[in-house]
Amino acid sequence: MSLHLQKEVEKLKKKMLFVSALVEENVNRAVIAVQERDEELAGKAIDADIEIDDMEIEVEEDCLKILALHQPVAVDLRFIVAVMKINNDLERIGDLAANIAERAEFLATKRLNDIPFDFTGMSGKAQEMLRKSLDALVNMDSGLAREVLPLDDEVDSMNREMFELVKESVRSRKGDIELLLNLLMISRHLERIADHATNIAEDVIYMVEGEIVRHKG
Amino acid sequence: MSLHLQKEVEKLKKKMLFVSALVEENVNRAVIAVQERDEELAGKAIDADIEIDDMEIEVEEDCLKILALHQPVAVDLRFIVAVMKINNDLERIGDLAANIAERAEFLATKRLNDIPFDFTGMSGKAQEMLRKSLDALVNMDSGLAREVLPLDDEVDSMNREMFELVKESVRSRKGDIELLLNLLMISRHLERIADHATNIAEDVIYMVEGEIVRHKG
Repeated sequence: MSLHLQKEVEKLKKKMLFVSALVEENVNRAVIAVQERDEELAGKAIDADIEIDDMEIEVEEDCLKILALHQPVAVDLRFIVAVMKINNDLERIGDLAANIAERAEFLATKRLNDIPFDFTGMSGKAQEMLRKSLDALVNMDSGLAREVLPLDDEVDSMNREMFELVKESVRSRKGDIELLLNLLMISRHLERIADHATNIAEDVIYMVEGEIVRHKG
Repeated sequence: MSLHLQKEVEKLKKKMLFVSALVEENVNRAVIAVQERDEELAGKAIDADIEIDDMEIEVEEDCLKILALHQPVAVDLRFIVAVMKINNDLERIGDLAANIAERAEFLATKRLNDIPFDFTGMSGKAQEMLRKSLDALVNMDSGLAREVLPLDDEVDSMNREMFELVKESVRSRKGDIELLLNLLMISRHLERIADHATNIAEDVIYMVEGEIVRHKG
């Protein structure tokens, strides 16, 4: 790898670190905004998504420049391609955090003592997947990335439980429907964050080992 | 562009046409399965997703080979990068069609005369967006791609209406809750198909004009 390309790749890695941190922080903000019914924090999470969107375009343009100017091959090419895909997943996670924050704004208008599903358990699991997949990316650790994959089934099954819970509550005419529907949407957003974290983990495995593992579940 | 690269790009275009047709056909299948409560057709849509998943990996590997062997620049590079992104969106649309088909299987177990929301209107709009974005891709027509972008707002607002309708039905205790929740999920899947069609349209505009239009709404 030429020294110039090496420098560009290092710069790109740093930028990905920065975007990862932004996205992870914003998911945390959205989750806390739900837990604490904190409207102000929800607003911050919604606003912060603009920077994430801008960074997505910047990273993609960097990748295109590197491809055009340096024409990397082998492991460097795989790295750039994986960064482009992960960049896309990070932007989508940022959107989902903003979506959760919008629901948190609604929840903040409600008086409720407890959220009638294991929100903390589910969000904690999704956040764990995101953190591990991003650590795997930063450290090029495909072993860690492989730890993420089975967790996706756990989040999927939590989301299905949430769906059943809403159905049951509505059937038995207990609880506030609008609230429950909002919680159902939050549950779906978390489930999709877990999906994107899985995508990132799969791309890290591909980047490090050159093996495409998706659609193998 | 070398003759060899030109041939590879032509082959890739043909393969994208093939995948596009598969995906569009499968969305149609899923929509009809909902409309007709056709469990067998729903099953076909679910099975057909396996081929779409396989094609996604094949197209991505082709792109990586072209990048590594031919190191394309300028418009060719943009084309390959756009194909990689569109390939990803197509695979996701395929998944969503399968998700809709799963809900159609549930609907087939229910006796109902009418679906209590404008499913035909919403699915028709999402299908129109998909068809236009894919036609734009095939014909490299950024004008047609631009026609897709405003339609996304229409589908979004249909999805919000669906959410309100479910809330109202539940509040007034009219209708079958499980059915309504399944319809709400179908509505969300359609909304996401529209999002992915928008992504494809944006990538076509980028491919043809070199302008990044996303996050400009």
